Amino acid sequence: MIIDKLIKKIKETQTPIVVGLDPRLSQVPSFIKEAAFAEKGKTPEAAASAIYAFNQAIIDHIWDIVPAVKPQIAMYEQYGPAGFECYVKTITYAKSKGLVVIGDIKRGDIASTAEAYSDAHLGQTGIDGEMHTICDTDFITVNPYMGYDSIEPYLGDCKKYDRGLFVLVKTSNPSSSQFQDMLAADGRPIYAHVGEKVSQWGEAFIGEYGFSSIGAVVGATHPSQGKELREMLPHTFFLVPGYGAQGGKAADLKGMVNKDGLGIIVNNSRGITGAYQSEKYKAGEKDFAKAARAAALDMKADLEANL
Amino acid sequence: MIIDKLIKKIKETQTPIVVGLDPRLSQVPSFIKEAAFAEKGKTPEAAASAIYAFNQAIIDHIWDIVPAVKPQIAMYEQYGPAGFECYVKTITYAKSKGLVVIGDIKRGDIASTAEAYSDAHLGQTGIDGEMHTICDTDFITVNPYMGYDSIEPYLGDCKKYDRGLFVLVKTSNPSSSQFQDMLAADGRPIYAHVGEKVSQWGEAFIGEYGFSSIGAVVGATHPSQGKELREMLPHTFFLVPGYGAQGGKAADLKGMVNKDGLGIIVNNSRGITGAYQSEKYKAGEKDFAKAARAAALDMKADLEANL
Repeated sequence: MIIDKLIKKIKETQTPIVVGLDPRLSQVPSFIKEAAFAEKGKTPEAAASAIYAFNQAIIDHIWDIVPAVKPQIAMYEQYGPAGFECYVKTITYAKSKGLVVIGDIKRGDIASTAEAYSDAHLGQTGIDGEMHTICDTDFITVNPYMGYDSIEPYLGDCKKYDRGLFVLVKTSNPSSSQFQDMLAADGRPIYAHVGEKVSQWGEAFIGEYGFSSIGAVVGATHPSQGKELREMLPHTFFLVPGYGAQGGKAADLKGMVNKDGLGIIVNNSRGITGAYQSEKYKAGEKDFAKAARAAALDMKADLEANL
Repeated sequence: MIIDKLIKKIKETQTPIVVGLDPRLSQVPSFIKEAAFAEKGKTPEAAASAIYAFNQAIIDHIWDIVPAVKPQIAMYEQYGPAGFECYVKTITYAKSKGLVVIGDIKRGDIASTAEAYSDAHLGQTGIDGEMHTICDTDFITVNPYMGYDSIEPYLGDCKKYDRGLFVLVKTSNPSSSQFQDMLAADGRPIYAHVGEKVSQWGEAFIGEYGFSSIGAVVGATHPSQGKELREMLPHTFFLVPGYGAQGGKAADLKGMVNKDGLGIIVNNSRGITGAYQSEKYKAGEKDFAKAARAAALDMKADLEANL
């Protein structure tokens, strides 16, 4: 079960960090960008090849100390087909290094449309009987607003191809309160109702550690809701955004783990991949990947000290 | 204002039809597929070029009788980068024929991620100062689950580039009831709260016909909720899925238009693009695009008779 693979990697590396690969061009060192622009002009193709070179170097420097990476597809989609190819190649490269890959795609649609997304990101696309893997992601994030119809098509591929989901439940952003926190007639917030359904949808996917491959996105910025959801959903693994840049602290995560310290994978994107640009690491451009490793190790220490 | 352009096209063509370009390979005539497979094998590249040829022929046969088309990006994403390129080319081709293009992408994310989606689909992507248009869509669909943070980044580009949104409010699928119909503490369903916000977000985008470029997705399969939402949101234009295959009928749309008969654009995908495969049209493969035109004209007559 893919959730067991993720948990084993967390145990091996002794940290529940997922490195967000959300590269902005402004984060890519000039020497990489200039080489790409010299070859291909200031084009989407050049941006994509610069970002792929950047991602490879980051992966080379963190694959042995973290369990997973999470490419954010929007950051690739903005460069069109070339960007999508960079997304696909980044996944493949990360997998070749043994990393678990979470595709942060937040798709949400129904019926044959959801099936097409599932083929693209979890399963395979059939072309007149020949099967093609498009994006070899282990997990994807999905949006529950359309209800079970928009989740069910993925579950078949999760079973068939041993993949997993993280369903948006309580997101890290300030206006997550707008609809997610709205109290339903029974006095419980919408996110609690969504969480309860995620837990039910995941019942057939519970692995050896007691967690399901069908997980939930729960922001680090909401520690009390995180604690409440952990108690309510003992079998649901949490993908936790919002640590660092968005204000979430390691101590805020305490309530989200079980007695074995398990139950979360915590994302950090810019804080790791853009570490060389921060005051703290004072690294030159050439050392961007070394700075990323140092930042990942610092985050590991921070989580260890506070969890 | 882009909503005025859409309404003018609806008036010109005298019908509020949007043709969904959601091609499945099973819908593409064999002679088109075989030509593509002969050249490129049973590859994503072959699938993408077959689908593009199919879309071009459909567009050539419907551009003068309908106001808009709506490519569903999942159907392209399943073929990877080549599929994304086909999506981009389909938009460009439809625009060259004067059609309004609604990108059915249902994206939903926050901050710089939403900005990247907006650059890709509404605005432009900057590469070291050079600006590139990636997807030249007039409108996109977006998902509101994450709240205003996930909508606000698009509004700037809607203003700057004269684009519009359709925000999911009450979708056409059966399990849309699961969370969207949940009653909030004030006794009103979640979709009504979302609809109210969509109306507020759209206040600065109201055009000459009294409708905003920030619209809502409201399924044809829910006539009473559609009527309720029309009364509640007089300035909000509705993109209406669910007509035909999903069971929505023309008479069900009556409550969704205003006294001038305006306020909706009604999607039909397979019912038009796959008409040649249905009993009703008994068209040969070679006549697939003619059958699509006939089906669009039949839908126009059906809407006229019942609205």
